[in-house]
Amino acid sequence: MAAPIDFYFDFASPYGYLASTRIDALAARYGRAVTWRPIMLGPAMKATGGRPPSTVPLRKTYLDRDLPRFARFLGVPFVFPPDWPVAALAAARAHYWLTDDDPELARRLSQAVINAHWGLGRDIREPEQVAAIAAPLGVDGDALVAAVQSPAVKERLKAEGEASLARGIFGSPFIIVDREPFWGADRLDQVERWLATGGF
Amino acid sequence: MAAPIDFYFDFASPYGYLASTRIDALAARYGRAVTWRPIMLGPAMKATGGRPPSTVPLRKTYLDRDLPRFARFLGVPFVFPPDWPVAALAAARAHYWLTDDDPELARRLSQAVINAHWGLGRDIREPEQVAAIAAPLGVDGDALVAAVQSPAVKERLKAEGEASLARGIFGSPFIIVDREPFWGADRLDQVERWLATGGF
Repeated sequence: MAAPIDFYFDFASPYGYLASTRIDALAARYGRAVTWRPIMLGPAMKATGGRPPSTVPLRKTYLDRDLPRFARFLGVPFVFPPDWPVAALAAARAHYWLTDDDPELARRLSQAVINAHWGLGRDIREPEQVAAIAAPLGVDGDALVAAVQSPAVKERLKAEGEASLARGIFGSPFIIVDREPFWGADRLDQVERWLATGGF
Repeated sequence: MAAPIDFYFDFASPYGYLASTRIDALAARYGRAVTWRPIMLGPAMKATGGRPPSTVPLRKTYLDRDLPRFARFLGVPFVFPPDWPVAALAAARAHYWLTDDDPELARRLSQAVINAHWGLGRDIREPEQVAAIAAPLGVDGDALVAAVQSPAVKERLKAEGEASLARGIFGSPFIIVDREPFWGADRLDQVERWLATGGF
């Protein structure tokens, strides 16, 4: 079986959410697994001199229109959280806390968290909020809250972020197929053709 | 017949070029005409604090890959011009010089210029270069060179730019369908569904 696709995203990124609703099924159609890789976009924004588009008036006006419309285009739920973008440290750390022992559980946790944040508009900033979303998956809430404050897990997320920057990743979502990088929920059609044809 | 679609673009914008290769045929499938509206993105960049992505190292690396790939995806030619982005004042002014008397000629001129720039990699900065591209369309070269330096035509382009900013346009391409704004060559699929369904 061919190598998994890398799916980089920030939980705070609504376009990351939109892509997350499609990426697993898309990859599966071509016999591919997906490795979910949450990152914090802050350092990448610094590297590219970017600002969260939601902080730029003209872009904010457009985002308010584009995001719900894009979700309707895909047929997925979309609710603006009360505050966005948030720093989604707890969720990203929880992912890396789980992923070595149980990558599938880590993926399901990440999927549940990003769905709760952008599909239902729930806040995900606090470790306890992430724990509540993870509970139905059988994740121990107290252990999660402790883990996301542990130096080892914090260090792990930092290292993953540095590795992603070294790989040229500066946005969310970023999808890597056999070393070919695709940026944006609006590249899913090109990702699909790449998988179908082996490159174009 | 329903109102024309507005197609805003900067000649210097490669994604504007990519969209330009599709927009007329796409609109025609739904009985729509397209009004081509060249703008200078400089003032919009100022308003949004943006920088040309080609000046940001990580983004430049990605653009170098994404642009030719996107062109292959669409099946259209793509050649990086020796210098980019350029200030495409002469081309934009030439468009507005022609458009009141002969909008179809203005559109054909703009199409020829953007194709020459991004499909063939030709420089389009100088009025004489734009005139050479326009010659096969029967446009008088000396008249064009004089017109793009006339105060009235300069003022017209400036006014069009201010009107576009007032309309919330901050990027290229920007496509407006019945007051609904779509930003990016990667929104053509959504533009198409909007035209097909009257909104979603």
